[in-house]
Amino acid sequence: MPDRDGSHERTVFFVSDGTGITAETLGHSVMTQFESLRYRQLRMPFVDSAEKAREAVQKIAEAGRRDGRRPVVFSTLVNPAVNAELKAADALLLDLFESFVEPLEIELGMKSSHSIGRSHNISDSEEYKARIEAINFALAHDDGQSSKGLQQADVILVGVSRSGKTPTSLYLAMQYGLKAANYPLIPEDFDRDALPSALPAHRAKLFGLSIAPERLAEVRHERRPNSRYAALDNCRHEVAAAERLMRREGIRWLSSTTKSIEEIAATIMQEVRLDRRSY
Amino acid sequence: MPDRDGSHERTVFFVSDGTGITAETLGHSVMTQFESLRYRQLRMPFVDSAEKAREAVQKIAEAGRRDGRRPVVFSTLVNPAVNAELKAADALLLDLFESFVEPLEIELGMKSSHSIGRSHNISDSEEYKARIEAINFALAHDDGQSSKGLQQADVILVGVSRSGKTPTSLYLAMQYGLKAANYPLIPEDFDRDALPSALPAHRAKLFGLSIAPERLAEVRHERRPNSRYAALDNCRHEVAAAERLMRREGIRWLSSTTKSIEEIAATIMQEVRLDRRSY
Repeated sequence: MPDRDGSHERTVFFVSDGTGITAETLGHSVMTQFESLRYRQLRMPFVDSAEKAREAVQKIAEAGRRDGRRPVVFSTLVNPAVNAELKAADALLLDLFESFVEPLEIELGMKSSHSIGRSHNISDSEEYKARIEAINFALAHDDGQSSKGLQQADVILVGVSRSGKTPTSLYLAMQYGLKAANYPLIPEDFDRDALPSALPAHRAKLFGLSIAPERLAEVRHERRPNSRYAALDNCRHEVAAAERLMRREGIRWLSSTTKSIEEIAATIMQEVRLDRRSY
Repeated sequence: MPDRDGSHERTVFFVSDGTGITAETLGHSVMTQFESLRYRQLRMPFVDSAEKAREAVQKIAEAGRRDGRRPVVFSTLVNPAVNAELKAADALLLDLFESFVEPLEIELGMKSSHSIGRSHNISDSEEYKARIEAINFALAHDDGQSSKGLQQADVILVGVSRSGKTPTSLYLAMQYGLKAANYPLIPEDFDRDALPSALPAHRAKLFGLSIAPERLAEVRHERRPNSRYAALDNCRHEVAAAERLMRREGIRWLSSTTKSIEEIAATIMQEVRLDRRSY
């Protein structure tokens, strides 16, 4: 696990010529496989020249001397000349491009931009613009703020307050460029025993989030300690009423209790078959 | 590039026993190296049993027959029995765990959870809770909504309206668990020629986003067509006034014009040395 108190056995570097997101996402995922290892992590983004690569080699050497063990380096360096410098490092080098790009060149019978030395500007792409537009949509349609433009939504999340709708909507937008609105189910809806009036017209896009009442009470207590809103019996009542309403209305739902937003989002995509329309 | 019109040469699968985020992030990054290839992508998350792996193998075979070329498969399957089934697929298999976990086991002299067969629940971790808390913080402190709790912020972004502050704040929260507030610089601030009054007390945390006036006018026109707000001369005036103010106040800034939110976020982390405090 990452080290928070200065006692670590190894240093793990994420070295990249760009933002380092890929190196870091993969590196974290791989390192969770070694739960008992205490490691310190260091990001080195924007290593895009031989000189910066030599500086990186220095820092890796220093960390190795300090730890008494050679560091682990996850790298995504596209430029072969920069990469060649990094290879001098005394470390376990896990090179994402060498492992994957080279086999692909053979399979596809074409050269990669890596080989050609071209780089990629993601901020110009249609996909990127769709993501930014989706983030704006999620913010404008958070917490039932607006029912205008719901026909543009890819999915509309419903659930009791603090069941995870907002972070999931933002994640669907940021990661997948999907337009996710979200509507709270509130005591007034339970009294009327009906969905908020804007929603029945969009039934096919509705997806519910539920949550264990005990966990909901915990989350709500952090926000409004000792309130009626956070009381366990109230949480039990709201969750039961919301689930009854969703069941009667034929709305698919999942429990967010032990799931991360990544897992909730991936499940929704699969259930609503949203991936089919993404490309 | 991903195919949007049905004419593709290859199918690329992202097969995972979890959300598939790692397989997909890495896979996308690797595939951008082959810009001229038209491919169709299919996500297959939650492949966590031998039976589901056999279904995946079927789907891969179908895609291969349809395309007349074998598919490319990026996989992150932890369970060796499930992975063994996938290996029967007629495809170029790029296995993230085999490429990285096995060399690490040797380097670290320890077995991975992969080998032990244990899985990981990220929604329980401290890091995950920090991310959710940071998302809530970013939403509560978006667009100068609240100056309460700014002492808890890791960074406070400033800039003219539509310079990219909101998506960057949300990304810093979601990806890195950093608490990012953001404040707009508005015509009233330029008339007074001073920062919003809540900010000077937090000068060390301020980071500016600027943007080319032409790009700003474009973005604002999409939101409010033909308004004074979106007029190029007004955008020029606001950007010049904001940059003058930031320069005088000694606030570091970057231009968001051609950068993605990932790149903006990674640059801010490096400039403000935020990675030092993350672990």
